[in-house]
Amino acid sequence: MKLTKQNLEQRLDHLYDVIIVGGGAGGLSAAIYLQRYRLSCLIIEKGKGRSFWMQELRNYLGLPPETPGRELLKQGLEHSLELGADHLRGFVEEVRDEGENFAVKVKVGKQDSQYPVFRAKYVIAASGIIDTLPQLANMQNVFDYAGYNLHVCLICDGYEIADQRCGLFAGTEGAINTAFVLNWFTPYITVFTNGLFEVSGEMRQKLREHGYPLVEQPIQQFLGQNHQMNGVELADGSKVELDTGLIAMGSHYHNEYLQGLDLEWKGSNLVTDSMCRTSHPRLFAVGDLKEGLNQVSIAVADGTLAATAIWRDIRRSAAPRRWEQNLIGVAAP
Amino acid sequence: MKLTKQNLEQRLDHLYDVIIVGGGAGGLSAAIYLQRYRLSCLIIEKGKGRSFWMQELRNYLGLPPETPGRELLKQGLEHSLELGADHLRGFVEEVRDEGENFAVKVKVGKQDSQYPVFRAKYVIAASGIIDTLPQLANMQNVFDYAGYNLHVCLICDGYEIADQRCGLFAGTEGAINTAFVLNWFTPYITVFTNGLFEVSGEMRQKLREHGYPLVEQPIQQFLGQNHQMNGVELADGSKVELDTGLIAMGSHYHNEYLQGLDLEWKGSNLVTDSMCRTSHPRLFAVGDLKEGLNQVSIAVADGTLAATAIWRDIRRSAAPRRWEQNLIGVAAP
Repeated sequence: MKLTKQNLEQRLDHLYDVIIVGGGAGGLSAAIYLQRYRLSCLIIEKGKGRSFWMQELRNYLGLPPETPGRELLKQGLEHSLELGADHLRGFVEEVRDEGENFAVKVKVGKQDSQYPVFRAKYVIAASGIIDTLPQLANMQNVFDYAGYNLHVCLICDGYEIADQRCGLFAGTEGAINTAFVLNWFTPYITVFTNGLFEVSGEMRQKLREHGYPLVEQPIQQFLGQNHQMNGVELADGSKVELDTGLIAMGSHYHNEYLQGLDLEWKGSNLVTDSMCRTSHPRLFAVGDLKEGLNQVSIAVADGTLAATAIWRDIRRSAAPRRWEQNLIGVAAP
Repeated sequence: MKLTKQNLEQRLDHLYDVIIVGGGAGGLSAAIYLQRYRLSCLIIEKGKGRSFWMQELRNYLGLPPETPGRELLKQGLEHSLELGADHLRGFVEEVRDEGENFAVKVKVGKQDSQYPVFRAKYVIAASGIIDTLPQLANMQNVFDYAGYNLHVCLICDGYEIADQRCGLFAGTEGAINTAFVLNWFTPYITVFTNGLFEVSGEMRQKLREHGYPLVEQPIQQFLGQNHQMNGVELADGSKVELDTGLIAMGSHYHNEYLQGLDLEWKGSNLVTDSMCRTSHPRLFAVGDLKEGLNQVSIAVADGTLAATAIWRDIRRSAAPRRWEQNLIGVAAP
């Protein structure tokens, strides 16, 4: 059921099998599997994750390519609730290991906040990442195009970029190397630093050899209309015409709530085994937070794997269910 | 485009990037990704694979739980064709390694068959498995219930079996052990051997201790109506009432066409790395044919992984695309 400030008190004494932090593709897939394994779970979701912003899914089997990410999330939440999952809008502040169980502290409501603590045997970290966007004076100008034809994922959207004049908006010199993968799809690449960092002579030379212009001025604004970006206006008022763009400025990893635990990381990614188990045996990570491809299909499979591993753990430690009425006269094992 | 006997000649001289053997969830997901990576692929499909028979998907994120498997396949094929994939109905008889490329021999049409050979740099084995069903005199009686409430997958359908009187239809003594996982969902288990094999004293004792009756007579027919099985009639005319059933008789692996290649197997499963690459660097396996969970979500992610690994291979060996008009006066690297 949906938990709110009004009814969450009912669940404070409940020990969930699993608390899932994050209601994106990985978290919802895990919830569906867990409930179908007859385990109890609570999804805690701050809302508006990466897939919420996807205007068209394009590469997820079974849904028409123009399906928006938020449709997938809506369907998945409905599905989870029908199966008996609990769901709470809130921000997870801390996961504390209490030995047998985890205590999960949540901030609920931006105003008159409550800070309930829920408990579970297992936690699935499914809180994902969010792409860093160019910071312009008018952020609405960025939001108008990001997720439309100003892309953030080369694997997802290279196809749409093919043979277009593409602005590559890099956050660091290292991120400029994205150009040399992007050029599988298009050679018409202009690299923008937005005045954020210096570019080495070596990189300048490499860009020159490929014919990719480098623009180092700060960006004034994106140009375009109806969510279709068609160029960039620079600080000096000059304009660069573009057909599309790719932002390569890194991501923010939603993993602050895990910092009190002793976990193995690879950069900002959690290291897991093939069933998405982290170095903590009762903590799993799915989707973008763990190593691997940041794709909806991968997150959905991760949810399947984590839920299945948890079910196996819990099932194997449970007493087998016998058919009692047939046991009359049978010696106990 | 759709290839048929009439037009397949057009593609006999074409070297595909990838030929995908099997048009189920794994193969179609791979096709969508490959086409979006701007690679060319041909899906060869005999039709009526495991997911075609699923009456309700139930656990795949994004689709309502009552969506039949064939809907997923229909949508995926449409999606692949829109992206420019080729598709052929046919039965792959052999994959031969020609050094640089694979030659894939196909039987097209059950009557007046043609035997074209297509070529590709890579092959994805996505041909899956099919569950072995009880062999009764009247097979239509089995088909009436299999995939409805006579299930073949415990992970998929345990939820529907919960607390029901369930017949477990085992193919070997080893398969009777499924009862001790199935009992997570229900204790009301009756085990049927259909007269196929002997049961050891040890197993009889274990079943007795759990209260699970063992029925060793051959099955005459399943009873029920409107695809809802409600019991079994045995050879001697006696009846056993049931609410549902689970078949555990193993599977047939569609892997005959790979037998000429030197591949690493684990039982009937292909061994792969984390990107679904087999021990042959240009042959990938996705879905049920490889080790792991036999779930739609896993097959879909496998397709993503295999396609991405192949794209990386091909991209890295290709010449980088330069923006030629910007290269005037720039020394070649």
